[in-house]
Amino acid sequence: MLVKGKHYRTVWMENNAVRMIDQRLLPFEFTLFSSKDHKETAKAIKDMVVRGAPAIGAAAGFGMAQGFLEKNEKNARKTIENSRPTARNLFYATERVFNAAINSKNKTSTAIKEAQKIADEDVENCKKIGSYGEKLIKNNSRVMTHCNAGWLACVDWGTALSPLYVAKRKGKKFTVYASETRPRAQGAKLTAWELKNENIDHMIIPDSASAYLMSEGKVDLIIVGADRIAANGDVANKIGTLEKAIAAKEFGVPFYVAAPTTTIDMKTKSGKEIPIEHRNEEEVLYAYGHDGKDIKKLLIANKSKAMNPAFDVTPARYITGIITEMGIVKPDKLKKLMGK
Amino acid sequence: MLVKGKHYRTVWMENNAVRMIDQRLLPFEFTLFSSKDHKETAKAIKDMVVRGAPAIGAAAGFGMAQGFLEKNEKNARKTIENSRPTARNLFYATERVFNAAINSKNKTSTAIKEAQKIADEDVENCKKIGSYGEKLIKNNSRVMTHCNAGWLACVDWGTALSPLYVAKRKGKKFTVYASETRPRAQGAKLTAWELKNENIDHMIIPDSASAYLMSEGKVDLIIVGADRIAANGDVANKIGTLEKAIAAKEFGVPFYVAAPTTTIDMKTKSGKEIPIEHRNEEEVLYAYGHDGKDIKKLLIANKSKAMNPAFDVTPARYITGIITEMGIVKPDKLKKLMGK
Repeated sequence: MLVKGKHYRTVWMENNAVRMIDQRLLPFEFTLFSSKDHKETAKAIKDMVVRGAPAIGAAAGFGMAQGFLEKNEKNARKTIENSRPTARNLFYATERVFNAAINSKNKTSTAIKEAQKIADEDVENCKKIGSYGEKLIKNNSRVMTHCNAGWLACVDWGTALSPLYVAKRKGKKFTVYASETRPRAQGAKLTAWELKNENIDHMIIPDSASAYLMSEGKVDLIIVGADRIAANGDVANKIGTLEKAIAAKEFGVPFYVAAPTTTIDMKTKSGKEIPIEHRNEEEVLYAYGHDGKDIKKLLIANKSKAMNPAFDVTPARYITGIITEMGIVKPDKLKKLMGK
Repeated sequence: MLVKGKHYRTVWMENNAVRMIDQRLLPFEFTLFSSKDHKETAKAIKDMVVRGAPAIGAAAGFGMAQGFLEKNEKNARKTIENSRPTARNLFYATERVFNAAINSKNKTSTAIKEAQKIADEDVENCKKIGSYGEKLIKNNSRVMTHCNAGWLACVDWGTALSPLYVAKRKGKKFTVYASETRPRAQGAKLTAWELKNENIDHMIIPDSASAYLMSEGKVDLIIVGADRIAANGDVANKIGTLEKAIAAKEFGVPFYVAAPTTTIDMKTKSGKEIPIEHRNEEEVLYAYGHDGKDIKKLLIANKSKAMNPAFDVTPARYITGIITEMGIVKPDKLKKLMGK
């Protein structure tokens, strides 16, 4: 997508470096990050320079290629796979680059080519997700989303937001409710920034206002992304997705998950098997604002503890459909879609 | 309740002054505020030195007594009633003190006595709510609450938190999940501060983590407060209450509302008649931290708009019971309880 008139992907390879848009500084600063080896790339994933399952996958693929460049592919794979536990795409990418290159004649160039292919395929997939999902958006639709499943979370286009970008290009008019997504505020920061860049009408809402809006009949459709989809259609996504899905069912609001099939993990039978990452409690105990620079200030005063689960699992029964690059499917039809 | 081991009420009269805990500075500073006349008391209510409907009511009653002390009761009533427009308790208290004293022999002492009675009755009611609600808390219970319905919102004991304080005094051991309550963070700031003072084990959670915790079987009970309860048992309370209630029903978690019967408005037939206050969007667009002093910093960068509904309405069908000073009742038995 465009940033100040210039087209960017979120992550790409340049010589032996992996370059990324530094998402920790957005929306206040647009800065490019550069990691010279697989260790720096793994750390960038862990530190959320890059975030969002498909973008993490692309970064992991390039990091794996760096591992081959360093002739240290086995350690590299381990280091990268230990960076973040939930996103399916990370493991998909490291495995795919590793398997493609390990027995090839020219390991390094094969690894780089394969990593590039993963990134290019993601762009293609996201664009197709946009084309399928766009049909769900009517003129004057009011669409709710959560966290950031936009192009920043992928290599380009996005998953949950891709249908909006395609609809906008087709001239449809609609409004988006972007929920803040505490503690890291990816909705208020990244989704709002993306929508503003694309001139799409939107409003930021507190995370806890979604059921209220549905109860008032003000939401026509919800689209969220996914970090991992189990074989039975259960979806792991940003914490807060589950309660939006439950409320959506209660109020009869269609609830869609948008993700490329690389996010589907047929080896994970149900959501119960998906590990949920718990992050540092400081993210909850502090408020994060900006005033020329990022500012972190204590929200509480008394050394209370906090719990900070980063994801939750939405059971398939709450999901109207999964928007993939192969079309929109009911969650119980995933096995058929994946040919298993 | 206890602050550093010493017992306090949120508001009381001392000679001719009204004393209050200055809630604007909590949890970072514990400071007592003193208003020497009815004008200063009205200004303290307006400036939110004291907050929470029952606490506002008690302060208004004492301010009315100051008006009689100053032999200026008619103007005092007007000034106090103009301080904040919403809290029903404010008008209830000024009217009650005014009517009791205006035709009595010794107006001043009658007014002070009546104001004191209002405060004492609130304490009694909250304590009874605690005694009834305490029976719901078992050893090792994991109780979730939202916003602040503790003693700071009342004169003492609180509504939703009162059962916890009674249970603690009976030696029960339990854990509390206090949800942050964006945008003003009353859960992270005030509820956590209260629980810390009472040595009650607790954790702050992001607002969007409640359904996740329920889905993991980690919540035994939810207790929240209420801003207004309609005759049919629908409850208006802090935004986010509704989605917790829906998730609770889905996962079979008992969902209780604690409130004195003064919060029940038999003239409001159902929740649909309760107007929902929308507050300034700045509360959502900014992050609020503390570093020696309160700090407000921009959360987003791109002039997005925000929506800031302060309350939502939870339909009676999601509510297991309403804990009042007269006992715990099913929401559809309110009319019988109120003798109507």
